[in-house]
Amino acid sequence: MGSATIFFWLQLPNVTKSYRTALTITGIVTLIATYHYIRIFNSWSEAFTVASKDGGDYAVQLTGAPFNDGYRYVDWLLTVPLLLIELILVMKLPREETVSLSWKLGLASALMVALGYPGEIQEDLAVRWFWWCLSMIPFCYVVFTLAVGLNEATSKQPSPAAASLASAARYLTVLSWCTYPFVYMVKSVGLAGPAATMYEQVGYSLADVLAKAVFGVLIWAIAAEKSAVEESGKLLPN
Amino acid sequence: MGSATIFFWLQLPNVTKSYRTALTITGIVTLIATYHYIRIFNSWSEAFTVASKDGGDYAVQLTGAPFNDGYRYVDWLLTVPLLLIELILVMKLPREETVSLSWKLGLASALMVALGYPGEIQEDLAVRWFWWCLSMIPFCYVVFTLAVGLNEATSKQPSPAAASLASAARYLTVLSWCTYPFVYMVKSVGLAGPAATMYEQVGYSLADVLAKAVFGVLIWAIAAEKSAVEESGKLLPN
Repeated sequence: MGSATIFFWLQLPNVTKSYRTALTITGIVTLIATYHYIRIFNSWSEAFTVASKDGGDYAVQLTGAPFNDGYRYVDWLLTVPLLLIELILVMKLPREETVSLSWKLGLASALMVALGYPGEIQEDLAVRWFWWCLSMIPFCYVVFTLAVGLNEATSKQPSPAAASLASAARYLTVLSWCTYPFVYMVKSVGLAGPAATMYEQVGYSLADVLAKAVFGVLIWAIAAEKSAVEESGKLLPN
Repeated sequence: MGSATIFFWLQLPNVTKSYRTALTITGIVTLIATYHYIRIFNSWSEAFTVASKDGGDYAVQLTGAPFNDGYRYVDWLLTVPLLLIELILVMKLPREETVSLSWKLGLASALMVALGYPGEIQEDLAVRWFWWCLSMIPFCYVVFTLAVGLNEATSKQPSPAAASLASAARYLTVLSWCTYPFVYMVKSVGLAGPAATMYEQVGYSLADVLAKAVFGVLIWAIAAEKSAVEESGKLLPN
């Protein structure tokens, strides 16, 4: 995540001015994630200890300190609206549409994260499902708007390469976003204990790398391609 | 590794735009390695303690905390595909060839690292050899593709200096890559205990400096030479 941030920011001079705000935000998203993953890592290390008893096999034990999953939700509350905004900005829509889409998708996605948290910290399966369902309402609205919106935007891209990248961004958005509700369900279907916690953490981490770093690389590729098209247009005599 | 990162990034304005992405990634590879070597260093320090008993000779003792070699594999999983991509980018092949080679070599090398890990954490010699053999399949594919691909690319370089640098990159790639399977074998041929662990760590560390920092300097030299050729071409009256 940290390397992705540096990559996006070092690429700022290589894209035209129109795409620098999108690329700046792309790097901010992975920077915020870097900070929270350090917090998650430290919280994890403090919650578990690995030691060998009397020189025998190594075993994992609880230290008594709780593992705090709240860092993930604070991260998402900040990064999810931002990464929707970076996608809207790189599409370079008309100004009014950019502002209205940013507000609508930004608020809906923040609501989605906020509604997920009360269920995540619950052991009661019925309560977990209740918040999962509530959170899925803004989730479906955002994913549907993106899938449809990106389809339209794809057809308006200035070159075939930009169109194919926008199409890839669309598939990656739907794929990576749909991972989260499934990972959330790991504990809701009755799995519990250390194995369920491990699968949940691995699942969320993989989905985060896809939705933030890999998605960011696509945003950068779209920005670079559109910049190249714009610059070659300027240099041509017509 | 950290110094190499700073060197590569400070050199960014000294190469033309075509080579800046390659140089940015070269610095990211050594940055990721810096981070993991700090983790490896700390894990090593926590696993062993040096103390003198009753004022006598100093002796190394186990603390009970395990030395975690997983950091190396996480590092390789991220850096090995990236350093192949930096090499492909600096060759400045046609766009489609760049994309297809990056995917093929990136995925094959990630698979190579992933297949090596289950054997690395094994004491059972037969199981170690099994994973070593599996990992050698993508290894041979990548090294062969590089050796052949770099041979072709060498002949297309824009100046004799660039050609000789590309040729050096080719030899360094084959030499440094072939070090890893031999170091892996240290424990597979029956060597065990602290001495084997020490030889393994020294071997992997030396191979990493060659494959990341020294290799990165070659990538920078190729980028600098080709930038100079491109800029002198622009200044000529033809």
